This record gives sequence, structure tokens and C-alpha cells, in this order.
Amino acid sequence: MKTRTLFAEGHLIDSGILSKILNGILQDGGDYRVISFDVGKTPEAVSSIELELNCRDEGRLQAIADKLTQLGVFEREVQEAVLRPAMRDRHAPDDFYSTTNHPTEVYYRGAWRKVMKQRMDAVLVWREQYHTFACTKLRDLVHGDMVLCGGDSLRVFPAASSPRRGDFSFMANEVSSERSDRAAVDRVASELADIRRRGGKVAAVCGPAVIHTGAGDALAWLIREGYIKRLLGGNALAVHDIESQLYGTSLGVDLNTGEVIEHGHTHHMRAINYINGYGSIAEAVVQGGLTAGVMYEVIKAGIPYCLAGSIRDDGPLPETVTDMIEAQDQYAKIIEDAELIVMFSSMLHAIGTGNMTPSWVKMVCVDINPAVVTKLSDRGSAHTVGIVSDTGLFLHELVRRLTQLEE
Amino acid sequence: MKTRTLFAEGHLIDSGILSKILNGILQDGGDYRVISFDVGKTPEAVSSIELELNCRDEGRLQAIADKLTQLGVFEREVQEAVLRPAMRDRHAPDDFYSTTNHPTEVYYRGAWRKVMKQRMDAVLVWREQYHTFACTKLRDLVHGDMVLCGGDSLRVFPAASSPRRGDFSFMANEVSSERSDRAAVDRVASELADIRRRGGKVAAVCGPAVIHTGAGDALAWLIREGYIKRLLGGNALAVHDIESQLYGTSLGVDLNTGEVIEHGHTHHMRAINYINGYGSIAEAVVQGGLTAGVMYEVIKAGIPYCLAGSIRDDGPLPETVTDMIEAQDQYAKIIEDAELIVMFSSMLHAIGTGNMTPSWVKMVCVDINPAVVTKLSDRGSAHTVGIVSDTGLFLHELVRRLTQLEE
Amino acid sequence: MKTRTLFAEGHLIDSGILSKILNGILQDGGDYRVISFDVGKTPEAVSSIELELNCRDEGRLQAIADKLTQLGVFEREVQEAVLRPAMRDRHAPDDFYSTTNHPTEVYYRGAWRKVMKQRMDAVLVWREQYHTFACTKLRDLVHGDMVLCGGDSLRVFPAASSPRRGDFSFMANEVSSERSDRAAVDRVASELADIRRRGGKVAAVCGPAVIHTGAGDALAWLIREGYIKRLLGGNALAVHDIESQLYGTSLGVDLNTGEVIEHGHTHHMRAINYINGYGSIAEAVVQGGLTAGVMYEVIKAGIPYCLAGSIRDDGPLPETVTDMIEAQDQYAKIIEDAELIVMFSSMLHAIGTGNMTPSWVKMVCVDINPAVVTKLSDRGSAHTVGIVSDTGLFLHELVRRLTQLEE
Amino acid sequence: MKTRTLFAEGHLIDSGILSKILNGILQDGGDYRVISFDVGKTPEAVSSIELELNCRDEGRLQAIADKLTQLGVFEREVQEAVLRPAMRDRHAPDDFYSTTNHPTEVYYRGAWRKVMKQRMDAVLVWREQYHTFACTKLRDLVHGDMVLCGGDSLRVFPAASSPRRGDFSFMANEVSSERSDRAAVDRVASELADIRRRGGKVAAVCGPAVIHTGAGDALAWLIREGYIKRLLGGNALAVHDIESQLYGTSLGVDLNTGEVIEHGHTHHMRAINYINGYGSIAEAVVQGGLTAGVMYEVIKAGIPYCLAGSIRDDGPLPETVTDMIEAQDQYAKIIEDAELIVMFSSMLHAIGTGNMTPSWVKMVCVDINPAVVTKLSDRGSAHTVGIVSDTGLFLHELVRRLTQLEE
Repeated sequence: MKTRTLFAEGHLIDSGILSKILNGILQDGGDYRVISFDVGKTPEAVSSIELELNCRDEGRLQAIADKLTQLGVFEREVQEAVLRPAMRDRHAPDDFYSTTNHPTEVYYRGAWRKVMKQRMDAVLVWREQYHTFACTKLRDLVHGDMVLCGGDSLRVFPAASSPRRGDFSFMANEVSSERSDRAAVDRVASELADIRRRGGKVAAVCGPAVIHTGAGDALAWLIREGYIKRLLGGNALAVHDIESQLYGTSLGVDLNTGEVIEHGHTHHMRAINYINGYGSIAEAVVQGGLTAGVMYEVIKAGIPYCLAGSIRDDGPLPETVTDMIEAQDQYAKIIEDAELIVMFSSMLHAIGTGNMTPSWVKMVCVDINPAVVTKLSDRGSAHTVGIVSDTGLFLHELVRRLTQLEE
Repeated sequence: MKTRTLFAEGHLIDSGILSKILNGILQDGGDYRVISFDVGKTPEAVSSIELELNCRDEGRLQAIADKLTQLGVFEREVQEAVLRPAMRDRHAPDDFYSTTNHPTEVYYRGAWRKVMKQRMDAVLVWREQYHTFACTKLRDLVHGDMVLCGGDSLRVFPAASSPRRGDFSFMANEVSSERSDRAAVDRVASELADIRRRGGKVAAVCGPAVIHTGAGDALAWLIREGYIKRLLGGNALAVHDIESQLYGTSLGVDLNTGEVIEHGHTHHMRAINYINGYGSIAEAVVQGGLTAGVMYEVIKAGIPYCLAGSIRDDGPLPETVTDMIEAQDQYAKIIEDAELIVMFSSMLHAIGTGNMTPSWVKMVCVDINPAVVTKLSDRGSAHTVGIVSDTGLFLHELVRRLTQLEE
Repeated sequence: MKTRTLFAEGHLIDSGILSKILNGILQDGGDYRVISFDVGKTPEAVSSIELELNCRDEGRLQAIADKLTQLGVFEREVQEAVLRPAMRDRHAPDDFYSTTNHPTEVYYRGAWRKVMKQRMDAVLVWREQYHTFACTKLRDLVHGDMVLCGGDSLRVFPAASSPRRGDFSFMANEVSSERSDRAAVDRVASELADIRRRGGKVAAVCGPAVIHTGAGDALAWLIREGYIKRLLGGNALAVHDIESQLYGTSLGVDLNTGEVIEHGHTHHMRAINYINGYGSIAEAVVQGGLTAGVMYEVIKAGIPYCLAGSIRDDGPLPETVTDMIEAQDQYAKIIEDAELIVMFSSMLHAIGTGNMTPSWVKMVCVDINPAVVTKLSDRGSAHTVGIVSDTGLFLHELVRRLTQLEE
Repeated sequence: MKTRTLFAEGHLIDSGILSKILNGILQDGGDYRVISFDVGKTPEAVSSIELELNCRDEGRLQAIADKLTQLGVFEREVQEAVLRPAMRDRHAPDDFYSTTNHPTEVYYRGAWRKVMKQRMDAVLVWREQYHTFACTKLRDLVHGDMVLCGGDSLRVFPAASSPRRGDFSFMANEVSSERSDRAAVDRVASELADIRRRGGKVAAVCGPAVIHTGAGDALAWLIREGYIKRLLGGNALAVHDIESQLYGTSLGVDLNTGEVIEHGHTHHMRAINYINGYGSIAEAVVQGGLTAGVMYEVIKAGIPYCLAGSIRDDGPLPETVTDMIEAQDQYAKIIEDAELIVMFSSMLHAIGTGNMTPSWVKMVCVDINPAVVTKLSDRGSAHTVGIVSDTGLFLHELVRRLTQLEE
């Protein structure tokens, strides 16, 4: 029987992490014996556990220990991290450690080093100048980079929220379309107002349905009033926003009457052609060719934004970033200082954004399709709220509520 | 080769009916030759066609002719209808004619007789006192009833709408969540206002999600203000309405904060018990035990309503009709004089209502689930509008728009 | 500050129950101090906790204590249960205890009494002849029944599963359509084979889509081979099953070619009329009028079944139970000895069945709509598996797998 | 009153096109008078109509006439097409004609010119060397290109299918999950077998759910056996295919047991790293590092394929085309000679492909989400079949059926 002594500390019980640790051991064919357990006597106090992990063979023991690392378990007699060089660009040593989106520390050169640029599915590379490791995408790995291998010298701190600590996420324990939407609007509104008051940054990720459902004016208002300070989307968001400004339609449907307009199906192409005539959206704004709408407000406010391309795109517009590596890099930079990311009707770009966001950043995802909301909510973040609702009506209600709060 | 000469007349082209006739013949293995076609020269003029239907065998010929009957095709040399007696209760002769929800006429005793109580899936029984046939449910068939058999002596007039005639249905050619909701709200609001102005009747079919999404107050307002004059639903609608009045929750979720309330999961049972203490909802209203909400307004306004039971019910409340035959009969009676039926988040009761509604009654179906909207919209009615939206936000927006119209 | 000392024992950690207890206290505005905590040193050992619950006011303290009861927490110095008589039929005292679907014990006359006929949303009535309490529906409550009031003298044991204990539920931690279906089929097949081998009972709850998707033959096979020994459904299941036997169609669609059949839309009415001619389905089987299919196998095997009516029904068939109270009673009786309930494409009847099933009965729910699967899976049962799949293909694959296992 | 005389010819009635023409005029505020109508007397014969279009103002008249062009209506006294030069790259003259996906002819230099490279949302540029116009994307427009302007000199031939002509599309008039899947599998299987027999090309567009649902082996078989000759997908399809070959998992879920595997969440990153070690997927195949699966078969068979990047990608793999303009160009080239495109669980890439496909190419779309199927089916193609089903089970059933057909 192989054995290892492990240790964990924190809000182990109320966060449910201890359940996951013990069940995880059994599920993977291991066994355990609790050596000592010191329960936090009060809600504020942390608990700590020391346990003996047992397993028939060394391979499985290592596998379980590695997995437990993701839950904040570590060996008290922690070893120095093992680093191995990348032998070619974009290729890590076989046993490289692949990151989660949770706060992570690595024990190296006698100290716990807090990882920089935390995100999931990255490789940890030692950055001498910062005296720590940085999350690095496989594709950015360069020959000679020193890569963390194995999972023994790590501590990961999964997100834990607490009702006592007043966490935002407690508004929605489950994804459901059968909930009071006004309560949801209230919470999001007060969160947006709070963040604006203290000068924080909110990023919005929006799909073209924001425009189709007639909520372009609401989104433009949120940007103009300073509630939203970063915008992420795709080519179609801008195309239909501009179409709606030029023709009053979105994909050829009149936004006021809901009727399909004669020739409307060509409007989005004419919108693209119109912008191409100016050379860019920004130039159209400068020259007075575009005087309202989401993109107008974005450009006027000078806030960071990125329109990522996709295989579905028409055009695309000049500002659309057609290379996905470049688009991902821009997205990552734009959300760097956001403390809240709101996502409206955008499966593709919302998941793309979710992939690069650390677990401690709050996210709100509004979509009429419960599957999208579930997918986004299910990232191990304790601060994500999923709302199944109609984006158009939701955004208008949100503007109405914020207007009331402002008065 | 067997042959029959058929005739059809009406708005054959703009309604698309002629396409269905010709395709239907081919699809079922028949063939046709157009004898004469007189096209309506203007939008108002009707067209008429005379065609020869050919088929290898008599059985198939009859089958196709019967099917064409549903599309308004009839034999010019129409035969007297064949009636045969029901030989036992609830059992029609084998070749009984099964109705559609479209206007139908039967040629009998030398004249075309317009069918009474039109609905789908019924049997046509001769009613001597009215000199015509009445749609009769199989279960209401009585030994000796004279039942229409075969499909040769009929004319059916499928619903046809026209943009020129300003039909309501032209607002939504397709079911989509990606449409401007405010346009949809506008149309429904002006339709409701029109009907109230001229004293018409609107029936609402509502699921419990109306309450869960916090829109109970909006529905109560629509009843109080006289926009809705008949209410159809199930036990759960009333249970959660009363729960929300007593506890401020729906299924235990606080409607103001969206939070799950301590003990909230028992609230719906306590609401039922509370009403049982009075003996009925009506008695609770009379005695001042229930002073607001949907059921309060229904009872105060004295409008016809029915709460149909289901296998999922808790309780049920005293007013719930637990026998489905009785509930269907009540439903059918309640919608008899409705000119518009609005359906909110109610798959079960909405489909039940749709089954018994003639094709010329307007229906609006609002649901967050596109499948429900599609199912309801797809009944061959030209006057049905499907809206994929969030019921809670939609109803509140509707109240806001009607309030503006009233001013 | 009001205080109470509470106690809990069991698999508190791996089940996640302790997290729920501590979070629940905080969420409801209470506070706690752990007096002692004895952790189970090994996976088999139970843990126990003694804690002090604090709260500003007595009302809230009581509310929290009541809620904790649902999680198996009880006062060590447990009081005798308080019983009060129902003062009229169908009406319990205001503070009646409303049950969960978890195993429950009441402390009364100096002993813990295990509750009979456990189900959720019931009232606990003392049954002298059995020396214990029985779950009783509000509507069955009779004047003079002694009803348990308050929640102080109870212990509830929420379902806890363990990977070590080989629980069925561990196959699906989440509801997703993006999973390997063959793995799911394998598990369900081996479960069905196990239960049949040891003579256990499996109940199936089926919607009409089982027939529409062409899987009627698969369901019939499962009944004929003895894998399914109870059948719950609605009128439509039987109507379309019989339609498919008589005409090869379901709702008028040919099950072999997928084509809409001439006159097919009347087939379901003709099927009902056909059975009405015999007086009942059973009589049609006896007289040789129905010789194959789901209902044929059910009647031939003589297994318990119930077809519950609904507001949507055509007909209904003679065997359909149109009164919902009677239908619920029959359903409850039929599942009494089932150890596994499999549900295929049936939202209405599946939820109805779920409502009356204790949490320790295993349930498998297969539906193409993720929302249905989520709703069913979310009942606090640790033994429920949700599978998002195509019912028709799933059932055929299941038959194929069972046939292989039999060889 | 402004007037114009228009003409149309073809299967105007059975295709439903005449209905669309007449309704379209009214809907857009015009009026009409039929001058002559010559109905096709038999199913094979074409009809022709000459009508007078009336409108109050010239602008609206032009707008309606342009719209009717999309329905195959043209002016008998057709004018020479008006061409105007693009004054800068990527920018067409304001009144450029925007294409549909239907066959199109332009009257120019005294003759009707059949358009090359038909696709929707393109500009028509005169290509002197081919004596006709070619669909050209806005972004490919070069300064000086002669662009077709206005819509007067065009004829468009919307797709028309006929039951008599045995069209594939007649298997599914509507999108529904409640259909017999075996019938659908049969049709797709016989279509695939037919096309392979006569040496035709089938392209498959696949999402990663093909792998997640355990159907990677089925897809690999279809490629190996020559049923599928072009593959379109994204990075994730290849990542999870390779993950499943290396680890037996897809997104960390074991494909045989359905269980979440220890460390499984890192498998997809290890798969990418593994391929990066070889430099490319192709190199891994050559060097024996990848010996089975979808990508192995694709590379071994040497069939054209493209993995398009997206904002959601991890890695990406070396073969992934990260620039969307390049990816669209490769997609377009690959489907050029495909006569059937089958789409499995891929919203993003399926819509991208649909956008560039002419309306006469057959498409089959299989997805568990009805919304995706509806979106794809709704492109005005008469040859598109939407099937709501479980991709995993569907593909396995398809392989089984094809194996039977081969025997």
C-alpha cells in the first residue's frame, strides 16, 4: 500500500470542498484515513485537515494527489517545483502542469509563488524578472522556456463564496427561466451602479441578438452613461448595429414594427459596404457618417473593444479581427482589469471570454437558451450568475432601473 | 385509370392552397390535368379551378379526394351526404368523417349546411332542430346519432389571411427569439385595446410561470382593467398566485429578491391548506381572506374561468376541476365567444385550448421555449402569432404600453 | 441572543450535507459555533457534529431549526411531537409539518417512529394501528386526524450516495447532451438486467413520443421480456400505440418512411373509435382486435398500468382515468414496489410520478429536452440519472444491448 | 399611379412561388392586375403569368420590382444590365445588387448570362474572360471591377421541389424531435449509398459533440469507406478526436463508461501538446504517432478538409486555420463539388457553410437542438432536411444501416 500525507486548509466545509476531496479519492479508487481535523468553530474561522491518502500503486496515488491539488490540497513537506525546458516552440515537456482558472501558488526556490495571469488550460513558465510563474498559452511557449512539470508543488484555491460574505452569486443557485426577472434586473442594476460609483470596470460580451431584439439603444445607453467600459463581440454585432442605424432594421426586420422589410435582406451587406466606403467604422464616426448606436458610443467614448471574426461572418467590417490568435490576445488584454463581465445572447464569444477569465472575476450571463447559461455558469466560479431571459426586454428593464437609481 | 372532376374556388393562390392541392395529389400517387383555371385578376377577386383527378385504383382516388376536401376542393356534381347511425354509444361507423378546425359545409337535403361548434377531431352529427350538423366529440356520441360518413359531400375552407386585409398574423411569419420584443408588445397591446373598446372578449391561458416570473400583478391588472375577460389555467396557477399573496413567494422563491426563502418549499402547501380552511377560493375572497392577486380579480370581476387538474397537482384547490372531461367541457364553453386567446407559458393548457378552438379565432402564444410556440402556431390557423420571449418581462411591458395608450 | 444546541450524525461530509447545514444557517441570518466535531476517520465511518445555533429572535431561530430538520439535524434533547387534530376535512392546523421525499422519523411516545408511505408535500397523521405516522395528502385529511405540527421532533435523512458504495447515480453528475450515449445505454441495460435477475420491479413512465419516434416495438419488447413490470402514461401513449398497430402511423406520420400519410391526421380518432367499438382495450385484445404493441403486451402480461387523462386528450380511450385524484392514487399504488423508474419523453407524467416517489427510489429520465431532464434530476434524490438523448434511438439501442447480454 | 408589366414562368403554383409573388406585392403596399395566366395543365407543364404591377410612387414600385426579382419575376422588355465600377477596393457602388443563393441570370450585352460561383450576400462582377458575372465577396472587390447595379435586368430561379420528382426533401416538411428516427436514418443511408455508387462527393460538417457523444468511430468509418469525401469542422473536432485516441476520453469524459476521468480535464491540452511535438497532425500520422480516428482517416484518405479556428479555441492545433478569411476561402473551395452536405452537431460551422452554399445543393442537418436545425433548414433551399436527433446514436445507426446495405 502506497501512502502520502496531505494537508488542506480554508473554508473547507461551507464551500463543499472537503466533500469533493473525500469523494474524489474514493471515485478514483483510492482510500483515506483522517489523521486530524480541526473544524472552524465559527463561520469566519477556517478549518484544516490532515489526511493519509492510500493507494495500491504509485501511479494511481500520484494521479489522485495531482487531482487533489486542484482542490487546494498539498503535501506539507512540499518539494521544490520541478521545471523542465521546452525543447521546441509550442511544445511543453510531456508531464507539464495544465492550469485551472483558480488562484494558484507554486513552491519554488523556497517560497510559495503566486501565479501571474491566471487562466485555465495554460502552461506555467518561470518568469525570472517577476520571480514567479506566468500562465502561458501552449502556442506562446518558446524553446528554452522553463515549464512546471508534475503537480506536487502546487496549491490551488478553488473559489468559495459565502452567504455571510454577501456574495453576488447567491442570487441564483440554479439556472431557470421560471424566476422573477425583476429581482434579477434589480441585482444586476445595483451591481452596475456600485461598480460605476467606485470607478470599476465592467466588460460586456454581446451577440447580435442584442440588436435583433431591439436592445441596441439600451446597450448604447449603458456605454454612454459609463456603466460598460469594455465591449467584446463579433463582426455581426457591429454589422447589425450599423444596419439598424442606417435602415432601422436588423437582418432586414424592422425594429419598430417587427415586419420583414422589402429588400431588408440586403441591408446588412449595404451597411458593410457603407462602412467600407469610409475605410473603417471609426472614420465613419469621425466624418459624421455614423451618429448613434453601439459602435458610435464605443468609438466616441474611446473604450477598449474587440470584434472577433468567425466562419459565419459577412464582410467582415474593417475593424473585425479576423485572426483568432490576435482576437484572443486582444480579448484577454481587454478583460484584464474588468471586475464584472456581463454577457448577453452570445454563446460563441461568451464561452471564448469565459475560457480566459480567472475564477474570481464575477460574470453575469443572460440568454434565452438555458443551455448557454448552464455552460457559462458551470466553470467552477463561485461568482457567476446565469439568467434565462429575453435579452431585449432585460436590457430595457435594466436601463429603466438604472435611470431610477440615478434620480 | 379512374377519374374524378373536382372544383375549388377562393383565394387559391395568395393563400397557397392551390400549391397544396396540386402537390397533395402527386405526393399521394395521383395525377391531375387542369381543365380550366380562372385566375382572380385583382387581389380582391377570387380564383377558381376545375381539374381532373386521375388515379390507378379507386381506393386511392377516394383517399386523395377525401384529403382534398380538407383544402376546400369539392365535386361539382356533389352527392347528398351519407349518414349512418351510431350503433352504440361513443362508437361511430368505421368510415366516419373526422373534422378539422376550419369552417366546414356539408351538402345534405339539397343544400350546403354550415357546421355548428366547429373544432378538430370531432364527428359530424345531424341535429334536426338546427337543420345542420354539429361537431360532436366521440365520447358524446349516442346510440342512434346520425353520423356523416365519407368525405365526398363536404367543403372545407382553410384559413386564408392577406396582407391587404391587415391581418394580425402578418407580424410574425416565423417563430424566433431574435426579434424585437417591443414591436411584438406594441401589436398585442393595440389588439387588446381595440377589442376592449368594442366590447369583445379576450381569453387568457396561463401557466404557473406567470407567477414564478413575478408577473402575477401584471395579469391581475389586465383582468381588473377589463382587457382579459376569461381565464383558463390549472391548479398550479391559482396555488402559486395565492402563495404569492400570502407569503410573497412562488414555489418558495421570494418574488422581490429572487432568493429561496426558509421554509419556502412548504408555502404552496400552506396556501392550499389556507384556502381549504375557507372551503373555497371564492369564500376566501368573500370573507376577506384573499384581497389581491389573479384569482382575487377573477372572482371579484365575476369572469368565467376554469382551473383544470393534472397528474402533477398538489392539493388540489377546491375550485380545481379534477375530471378532465368536465374540464374540457368547461374550457370549450368559456372560449366560445372569445375573439382572441392569449397564452402565456402554458404548454399543457395552451395545447388543450388550441385543440378545441376553430381556426378563425386569433391566438397569441408567448413562451420562452420555442418548441411550445411552434407547436401552437402550427395548427393551420392563419391568425396565430408565436412570440418567443420572457413571460414576466413581456407582461410587465404590456401593462406599461396599455397604460400609455390609456392616457 | 437566542440559542439552541443541535446534533447531526452520518456521512455528513462526503454527502455535502454539512456544507448545506452551515451555509443554510448563515443564509437565513443565523450564526453558529461548533461545539464538537467528530470526523469519520475512514470512508465507512460516520461523522457527528454538535453545534450551537444562535439567532437574534426566537421566530427566526425556530425557522432555521425547522429548516435544518430537513437536513437530518435534530435536538439531542428532543421533545415529544406535538399533534393537533384537523378541525375539518382537507384542512390541517396552520403549523402542520409538510413532508419531504426523504426518510423521516418522528419522536413520539418516547420513541423514534419511521414514517410510512413517504412522499413530499404530505401531512403526517398518527396511525394508531401502525404505531407510527403516515404521509397523508391534504385532500385525504379527515376531521379529527391527529396531525404533526411544528418541526422540532423530527429527523430527516437526506439521500447520500457514495462512489465507494457503487451508486448508479455516479454515472451522470451533470445533464448534458454532449455525452457518450452508448455508455449511458450500457449502464441502464445492466441495471435492467440485474433487477430482472433478482425479480425486482421496474416501472416505465412513457410519453407518446416513444411511439412517434418509432420505438413502440422496443418498449413492447421490454415489457414482453419482463424488464418492465409497471407502465404509467397518458391517453395519448395508448392512442398512438394502437394507431401504429392499425395504420402503421403515429399522429398520421408513417413510422417506416417518416412521411405524412393521406388521411393520417384522422388515424388517431379512428383508433379510438375502433377501441370504443370493442368497449375497451382489454376487450379488443381478448377478441383478437389488437394483436401487438405496447398496450397489447401490457394487457397480455397482466402488469399494473395506468393511463392518466389530461386536458389535451382526444377521446379518451375507455381505460383512461379521467379523474386526476383517482389517477394519482393509481399511480402511487403502482410505483409502490418499484425499485427503478425509467422515464421516456414524458414531462407531464414524469413530473407527476416524481412528486410521489420517495428519494431513495432510483430514477432514470431520458428526454431530448434538457429542461425536462434537469427538472426531474433536481429532486434531491441521489439516485437519479438524467440523459439527454433521442428516445427512439435510445430505446432501440437498449433492446440491442439487452439482447446481447441475454445471449 | 406608376405601372410596370412583369412576367414569370416555371412551376409557379406547386412551388408556392406565385403565392409569394402576389402576397409580396400587397405586403409592400403595391397592387396588381393579372393580365394573363397560363396554367400548366399537367404536373410536368410549366405555368406562366403576366401581370401589371401598380404603385403610387416610383421608388416603391422599383423596390417591389427588385424584390420580385428574387422570385424569378422579370420584365419582358428587359433592359441591359447597368454596371458601374467600384471606386475603391472592398467598396461597391451604393445601389449594388446583393445576391441570393438561387440560380441567377443577368441580361447583358443582349443575352441572359448565368452567374458563376452562386452564393448569397455577394456582389456580381463582370468577368470578361468568362463572358458572364461571378459572385464576388465585398472584401474581394477590387478598384475598377464592373459591378451590377439595381435589380432590373435579372432573373432568379428559386428552388422548387416536387413530390413527383422524388425529391429528398419531402421526407421532412417540418422540424420535429417527435419523428421516427429510423426512417430518417434509412433515407440518409440510401442517399449516401447512391452518391458513393455514382462517384459523387459528400461533405461533412462536424462539431466536437460528434466525438463527445462517442460517435468518432462512426465518422471515421464513413470516411474510411468512402461515404464522406470532404470534412469541415473546427479546431475542437480534431482536438477531441485526438484526445479520444490518446486517452479514450473527450473533454476528460471516458467514452466507454461516461465517467469523468482523473486529470481528464487536461487531456485535451496534452493532445494538442502531443501533436505540437510532431509539428502537425499529418506528421503524427506519417510517423505513426496517430493510428486511428477521424483525423487519421482524413489524412490517410487524403481528402480535402479544413479546421477553422474560433475565439473559443484551445491551442490551436497546427493545421487549424486561424484566419477567418482564409478559412472561409478554404471552406468554399472544399464544398465546390459536393452534391450533399451532412451536418452533425455544429451550429457555428454549419451556418458558416450554409452561407456559402448555393440553394440547389442538398443539405442534411442533424442536431439535438431544434433551433440549430430550424436555422439551417430555413435558407430557402428546397433540398434541406433537418433532423432533431442525438448525433451519437444517429451516426451509429447510420453505420449499421450502411453495413446492411453493403452486404
